[in-house]
Formats: sequence, C-alpha cells, structure tokens
Amino acid sequence: MNNEGAPLPSCPLPIAEYPQVLLAHGGGGQLMHQLLDRLVLPALCTNLPEHDSALIDTTGVPLAVTTDSFVVQPLEFPGGNIGTLAACGTFNDLAVAGARPRQLAVSLILEEGLHTNTLWRMLVALRQVADAAGVQVVTGDTKVVERGHGDGLYITTTGIGEQLHPTPPHPRNVRPGDVILVSGDLARHGIAVLAARERLRFEPPIRSDCADLSPLVDKLLATPGIQWHCLRDLTRGGLGGALTEVLTTAGCGASLEETAIPVAPPTATACDLLGLDPLFVACEGRLVAFVPEAQSEPALRALRNQPLGEGAAIIGNVCSGRDLYLRNALGIDRPLRLPAGEQLPRIC
Amino acid sequence: MNNEGAPLPSCPLPIAEYPQVLLAHGGGGQLMHQLLDRLVLPALCTNLPEHDSALIDTTGVPLAVTTDSFVVQPLEFPGGNIGTLAACGTFNDLAVAGARPRQLAVSLILEEGLHTNTLWRMLVALRQVADAAGVQVVTGDTKVVERGHGDGLYITTTGIGEQLHPTPPHPRNVRPGDVILVSGDLARHGIAVLAARERLRFEPPIRSDCADLSPLVDKLLATPGIQWHCLRDLTRGGLGGALTEVLTTAGCGASLEETAIPVAPPTATACDLLGLDPLFVACEGRLVAFVPEAQSEPALRALRNQPLGEGAAIIGNVCSGRDLYLRNALGIDRPLRLPAGEQLPRIC
Repeated sequence: MNNEGAPLPSCPLPIAEYPQVLLAHGGGGQLMHQLLDRLVLPALCTNLPEHDSALIDTTGVPLAVTTDSFVVQPLEFPGGNIGTLAACGTFNDLAVAGARPRQLAVSLILEEGLHTNTLWRMLVALRQVADAAGVQVVTGDTKVVERGHGDGLYITTTGIGEQLHPTPPHPRNVRPGDVILVSGDLARHGIAVLAARERLRFEPPIRSDCADLSPLVDKLLATPGIQWHCLRDLTRGGLGGALTEVLTTAGCGASLEETAIPVAPPTATACDLLGLDPLFVACEGRLVAFVPEAQSEPALRALRNQPLGEGAAIIGNVCSGRDLYLRNALGIDRPLRLPAGEQLPRIC
Repeated sequence: MNNEGAPLPSCPLPIAEYPQVLLAHGGGGQLMHQLLDRLVLPALCTNLPEHDSALIDTTGVPLAVTTDSFVVQPLEFPGGNIGTLAACGTFNDLAVAGARPRQLAVSLILEEGLHTNTLWRMLVALRQVADAAGVQVVTGDTKVVERGHGDGLYITTTGIGEQLHPTPPHPRNVRPGDVILVSGDLARHGIAVLAARERLRFEPPIRSDCADLSPLVDKLLATPGIQWHCLRDLTRGGLGGALTEVLTTAGCGASLEETAIPVAPPTATACDLLGLDPLFVACEGRLVAFVPEAQSEPALRALRNQPLGEGAAIIGNVCSGRDLYLRNALGIDRPLRLPAGEQLPRIC
C-alpha cells in the first residue's frame, strides 16, 4: 500500500529499447503483443485468457460487481499510486456491499510517451494489493492514445466479489436512531494528492490513507451481535458526500458532532491553509458505518480492534427528516450541504 | 446499430443550462448527481445500484467476463459511434467464447467541454445495442478530466455472460485440417473510421460493419452436427491479427486463398488508395470460424442463413507448422506476417 516497500522486480520488457510507450504498442501488431507479454502480464502475474473472455466458476453464490475509472493526477503520491488506488477503490466498493473480492478485470489507456518503467511500477503496485486480498486479475485490455492525451495512464478496474452475507449492509437498512461511526481520520488522501500535484511541502508530509478495506469489513461482519446496517467507503466526496448519498437513499437525516470527527492536526492545518473543508475531502481507506444505537460501543470496539480501524470514532446519529446537521463545540447546529462541484478535481 | 434510426428521446438534463460537461460534473457534488440522474442513468435506462456494487444472482452456471476500453476517434462514424462500438465489442468478446451476454458495467471518462447532447447520444446508442441483446447495464462510473485531455469520451465496458455450452469454442480446439471461414466482407470498420477522421469522401460511402454478433453465434452454436472448434471476432488487428492470435494459441499454421477472402470492391479500392492491407484493417462485426473439414459446407450454410453471416466464405485451411500463408490467384504462396505496429490507430 506504500511506495517504499520491498524493491520491485524489474520489468522484463527491454527498457533500453522501449523506454516509452509508442502509439504502435496499441495497434494489435507485434509491438502490442510484446508489451502485453513482457510488461503487462508479468506485472499483473496473470495468464490472461487465450480467448476473448475469462471464465469464472460460480457455485450459486450471488456476485457483486463494481467498476471504476481512475484518472488521478499525479500518478504517484505519498502513500500510494494509481495502481494501489485502482485495486483498493474497487475492493472497497465490493467490501462495503458485504462482498469478498475475488476477480479483477483491468483495462488500461496509455498515453504515447508514458515511461514503460512507470507503467510497470503502477501495475506491480496494483497486483500487490490484489495478491494481498487473494484476488486474481482475470482479464484486461490495453489501448494507447496519442501524446498529449490521456495523462499518462488511466486505469479502469472492474471487480467481482462473492456476496456471502444473507443480509448485507445497505443504505436502505439505515434508520433514525442509528449511530454513525467512521473508521479513522479523514481527508488525508485528497490532501496527499493535492500536495503531490502542486508540489506543496507539508511538514510532516501527509500520506494518503489509501487501503484495501476488505479485511477490515470481513472482520466487522464476522463480529457476533452487531448489525452493520450500512457501511460505505469514503471517496471523492469525502465523509460529507458519502453521508449525503446514504441518507438520501435511506430517506433520513443526521446530526454530527463536529468535535468528534477525527481529523489529524497536520491534515486540519493543511485544510485550513488551503481553504478546504475536511468533511468533503477524499479518503480512500476509510469507511462510515451505521449501527443500532444499543450496539454503538461494541461496534466501536470491533473497529478499533483492527489495524485499519484504530482511529475509529462515533460521530453522530441518524434522525428523521432529511437534513444533515453539524453541531459545533458550542452546541450550535449548522446544515452540511453537498458542494455544487468538487473541492479537488482528479483525486481518484 | 446505425445512426439513422428512430429519433432519439431528448436528454432530460437542461441542455441550455449545461450544454457542455464541466470539470465540476465529476467531483462528487450536486452537479455530479445531476449529470448522473438526468443524463447518464436515463440514457442507459437503468437504476444503478443504490450502493457501491451491483448484485448478480447466479445459478451455478459459469460466467464469462471481458473488459475493453474504447478510445475511437472520431466519436461518430458512418455505421456507428463509440457507444455502439463499446456494447458490440464487449458482447462479441463474450459471444465468441460461447457465452450469452447478460450484464454490462459502463465506466466513462469525460473531457470537460464535451457536449452533453453528444454524451446523451452515445449512451443512448450503447443502451439500444444492450436492449436488443437483452443485456442490462448494472453498474458504472463517471469521471471528468480537464479540457484538452481525454478526447471527449472514453468508454470502458465490462461484460458478464453466461457460459451455457459445455464445450465452448476455443483456440485450443483448432487442429490441422480445420476449415477457416469468415462471416462477411472485411475491413469496413477501419476504413469508415479513418474516412470520418480524415474527412475522406468515398463514393459510395463505406459504413462500419459494427454489429453485435451474439445473436449470430447463438444460432451457430445451436445448429446440430457442427463442431465450431473456435470462433473469434475480428477487431483492431483485422483478420490477420485474429488468425495470428488463434493459431499461436493452437500451435498451428494456415494457408489462405487470397481470392476467396471477401472484401467489397469499394473497400478494396479505398484500401488500395490508402496503401492499407485489408487483411489487417479492423472489423467490428465479423468473425472467423474454424470447423472440421467435413463440416465446412453445413457451417457455411449455417452462417449464410443468418443476416450477419450472409457474406460468409470459406477462406482456407489450418495446417501443421507455425506459418500463415496467403496463396494468390496464380497459386503462389507468400507469408502473412503481423505488422510491427498498427496500420490505423484509434479505431476502437
């Protein structure tokens, strides 16, 4: 999940000969086969199907499917890169729906001129997240667009997971009285990407929270006695965006305690400096959970027992009505409204 | 499958207010929800899941999965557009693997400034192909990149199909002696896209062959007495690319009769003028089939009985060895080699 782990295996494509992707690498000819056989497939540690589709054996278990395109700029940032992000983002979407990720399809849009070493590094990073999750890359596609288009690399990942739970968490289960928890401190991913893009130096540096939440969710759903009404990973709209979506589906409102919402001091300072509201800044390794009021303490303990939930906190309650309020330290409520556009473009 | 059908329903997004996509349409805020609720979802005629993943009920039937990114330029061309192409291309990959397309995931990368009406038209076109195939769009994603990146619209489609056949067609089944057939005339898609891109006017105009082959394949596989050893749709590498891939997997060679390979005279003339070899120009609605020699005539009839196979022809034989030869009208063999790069970039 970080860029400072063990040294990567080196790329089997002769880098001296092809330091950069050529337009011809996307054309269906010998060069395309070479790029696939010597870079993409070894990086993903997969034998893609020798035919046009991969086969998945099913055992009657319902499957969950999700797809996401990743267009983050820059491709690498403290705490991750577009490869880790593509795998984590897709696994998280499956996990919060109660599904265990099993297969991944990976489609690449390369910009002519992309360094083959960069591509290798991003794909190996993606595969390392997949390996750790026990997920296999089963199929893929590679296209090349002309120099000046496409920003180096776009990755679209489609994940398939097994829906093992008879009553998986879902926004429709949320009801007034439910307690709202978050799994850790907010807004680090958005700030880390923005800092990398704008070459801002924060001291200490702020690292993305990018992480695969599926092991955490597995443990949560296996904890006896807790009904996880809904889980939702926080992505481009941050906590505010995720809450708005869940509450809209549930037909409920909520009241949050501003002082209870965990934002690490360096992140809070960075948000202040940049004029950003941390409640709407992206995370990529955090989730919000809704549980019945009586189960809030065991739920908090279940979260804090896991490495990815150590910083968990209870942050508020679901209520009737449709409004989302934030109560400050003085006890004064103010409405929390989804911004019209985004605070930060291109963070995932 | 064409752009001249019934008038499209009009886009429910207030086009006067948002004639073009804004960067903010991708940011997770109110504008993104408006774009999704008033354009993307109605165009695709789908209620996307209210959670992060779609659920697919399985009945123990194995599933086939395929993914493809589409980056064709221009977005519209005679006989189709990026929407028809994305749906047809994905369904064809499933069909030739013997799977019936069932679900589709659609991920969009929009360029800031894309006309919302164009987006609407492309998505409605995609959905019309899906509707005709009985395929449901089950999940999706929408990202926006800055003006000057991304070429208007990239679409990544991931298709899931039911693998209903116990012994589906596969390149591994191909063996020396097999007869090779194509389902119709070649090279129209590549020439149609190139003509639209370079504003070349051919008289008569050359229309793309872009089509969903899954109904044709359904009928073929249901024809008694024919073992379809392998089916492969022809895409960016054309007939030559598809044959090279299949024969490499099969460990065989082949000999083709040049005069038997169907290329319509206007296409042949256009290829001559442009210096392109029609055997390597893309198709998007044609397949190559491999059957045992004794079944070649029934296989040809089975193809010609279907609208998408009317122009089918027997074009050669699989042989031992690893080389692919083309025999001309004088009986002289020349090797057919995969070009290093592509003849035509960005045709799918």
